[in-house]
Parts: sequence; C-alpha cells; structure tokens
Amino acid sequence: MTKIPLSPTARSTVRRGHKRARTDRTDLYALLDSCLVCHVGLVVDGAPVVLPTGYGRDGDTLYLHGSTGAASMMAAAAGTPVSVAVTRLDGVVYARSVFHHSMNYASAVVHGVATPIHDREAKLHALRVLTEHLAPGSWAATRPPTRKELAATMVLALPMYEASVKVRSGPPGDDDGDVAAAAAWAGVLPLERSWRTAEPCPLLPPGTPIPPHVAGRRTPTAP
Amino acid sequence: MTKIPLSPTARSTVRRGHKRARTDRTDLYALLDSCLVCHVGLVVDGAPVVLPTGYGRDGDTLYLHGSTGAASMMAAAAGTPVSVAVTRLDGVVYARSVFHHSMNYASAVVHGVATPIHDREAKLHALRVLTEHLAPGSWAATRPPTRKELAATMVLALPMYEASVKVRSGPPGDDDGDVAAAAAWAGVLPLERSWRTAEPCPLLPPGTPIPPHVAGRRTPTAP
Repeated sequence: MTKIPLSPTARSTVRRGHKRARTDRTDLYALLDSCLVCHVGLVVDGAPVVLPTGYGRDGDTLYLHGSTGAASMMAAAAGTPVSVAVTRLDGVVYARSVFHHSMNYASAVVHGVATPIHDREAKLHALRVLTEHLAPGSWAATRPPTRKELAATMVLALPMYEASVKVRSGPPGDDDGDVAAAAAWAGVLPLERSWRTAEPCPLLPPGTPIPPHVAGRRTPTAP
Repeated sequence: MTKIPLSPTARSTVRRGHKRARTDRTDLYALLDSCLVCHVGLVVDGAPVVLPTGYGRDGDTLYLHGSTGAASMMAAAAGTPVSVAVTRLDGVVYARSVFHHSMNYASAVVHGVATPIHDREAKLHALRVLTEHLAPGSWAATRPPTRKELAATMVLALPMYEASVKVRSGPPGDDDGDVAAAAAWAGVLPLERSWRTAEPCPLLPPGTPIPPHVAGRRTPTAP
C-alpha cells in the first residue's frame, strides 16, 4: 500500500477550520470503512450534480458502481472529473452562544477521474469489494452475478491521490466571556448508529434462520 | 405554503429507478426535517466540488450558512448554481443474489441558485431556522449573535423549486428463480440513529443540569 500524504494540491488543502484537517491516510481509510454512502459530484451540462451512492475501498482505490444506463455513471466513465464526499455525523455541539454551535464529524472529499473497469476478473473483484462493504459475508452466501448482470453494471475505479479529511471532536469552543458567564448549558449530544433486528423477506421458507453474518453484524461506526 | 409539484425539469426527473421517485413536497420536507447534514455541489474552476454542511428549512426555502471567507460560500453567493443532496440511509437490503443487494433510503437533490441574505432581520431569522434545526431550543437558551459574528457569517437562501426525491423501502426485489431456489437468506437489516447521553462541557460549573431541550431530544429520524 502506498503512503502518499493527503492534500497534495491547492483545492484539496483544507483552508477553513484547518485545525480540523488530517493528513494521514489512515484517517481517510477509517472514515471510509465506517460509512456506507458517499455523495458523488460531477458537472453535467455545466451545472453541478450531486448523487448519493454506495462504494467500496481496496487500498487506495475507491470503487463506485451503478447501472450502465445512468447518465451520471456514463459521464464519470467518460472521464469527467468527480468529487466524492463521505461524511459521518458523530454528534451535535451545543455551545453557550448560537455562533459556536457546531457538529462533531469526520468528513473526506476525494477529487479525481474515475476509470471504468471492463476486465471480467477485475470487475468481479471490484464488485466483491463493493458487496462486502455493503453487506459483509454476502459475496460467498448469495448467487454470483450472471454474465448479463455483469454487463448491466458499470464499475468505476477512482484512485485516491487527491483527498482532504476533516475531523471535529470534543466539547464546544466557546468564548472565554461566555464560559465565565455560565448562562447556558454546553456540551455534546453524541449521535449513534446501530443495527436493529433483521427483518426477513416474507418470501423466505418459514423457519429460515438469520445467518451469523447478518445477525452478528457490527455497527458501521465501530472503530 | 406553495404546492408546486416536484421534478418540473428534465434533470430533476428521476430516470433510474423511477418507481422509487416521489413527487409530493411533503416527502421532501419529511426527509429534510429528519436529517442534519447536506452535501452541496458546485463547480469551481470547471471541476466539481462537494462539501458537507448543515442546513435549515423554512417552507420552500433551504438555508445554508458558513464563513464569509469560505471559497465555496463565496462562489455560491456569487450565483454559481448549486446542487444540494440530503440522504438518509434506513437499512441494508440483503438479496438472494449479489446483483439485487441494495439499500433502503430516502434521498433528495435540490438544484438551484442561492441568494445571500444581507438584511439583518432576515439573516437573524435564517440563523434561527438553522440553529433550531441543528439544536432545537438553543436559539432561546444561548447568547444571540453579536454584530461581529453576524458579519462573519454568510447565510444563503435556496428556493426549492427544482428537486427530486427517491425513497426505497421494503424487502429485496429478487428474481423468481432465486426465490424458488431458497439458497440464501434475504431481508433487511434496518439502521437506526439515536442520541446517546449528553456529554457536558468540562468547563461548566459543577452540577449544571442538562436542560430538557437537550436531554429530551428526539432522534432525528423520528417521523
């Protein structure tokens, strides 16, 4: 695995709130591994478009996929630059002033050009990474893609050379005067994600047990 | 409140997965009111940029805010078109085939041009909407913005004329052959968000109670 520091370019250098910037790739990987949805931005007909989608990560490569008929996937596959953001909200920061209210979060933005994967083995590998990120254990437990399904799926690889990561944690950063006045409560209300009990498909044969890779799944924000 | 149907233009008409499209504004409002973070996309130097930020909603208006020194806020304030996406992940859909794995979610994308708010009263109103969305009860309970803080804050109003909403819920949509084969478990693993116990700021006077608007806050995904 390469060890390129993050933020090698002007646009991926955090300017606002630079104290929150992280430049170690392990922070990027930890964030990506703890979330499931990214937001892909691209320019279509001169205007910005942002779309939510799933993703998978293998080392420094981010995989995206979608229907071969989706306009956004076709644009990205044709080489239009993309900006991919992943954000995890960890809590709301209640300050003593309206102004210093904030959020605790981890966020990353990756800039680059994605490449479509056509080679069958490489495509299957990427789909396995995507599937195992969304639903760990499902690749081995469910029917693999048919030739037709593979053809209908566009898979893109985005190298994560240019990226920025920001993390905010901890209590509010109130002004000294507001702290001394002690006129308002201040602190953090942490937000937690957790899996509820699995809901079996109504079409399953009665009595089908929930497999361990589903029933025992850890929360996506677990470190 | 106006009752304009959603998706009046080609780019905001859902093409992929059109069965998941919603055209009632109440679906848009419900989604926005249940989430806290949006992803704003804009075009900077010809390339797409996606940034996470908070927001507030008042009727058909989406409010955004940030530092007056932030390049993205300045670009948006100058009239460059924005695309704002809000996504709530409700669960992972485990199918009997890799291909039909999916997510249950609600997502919205708003397209438009935002306008900076300069009028003092209008700006205070927007900041109240933003603050009460992030931290209900905080506007009345904490120190209001000073003149200097107001000047340092850029507030933008984005009219929600052009928007698309997609919602997926329910069990997987497996092929009949895979259902009949009954070779794999299938169903949904719902994802839940909840507030953990509030963490008071270490600089509070000892014994300061957690106020009801914090301790009794409902989860953001509550309907």
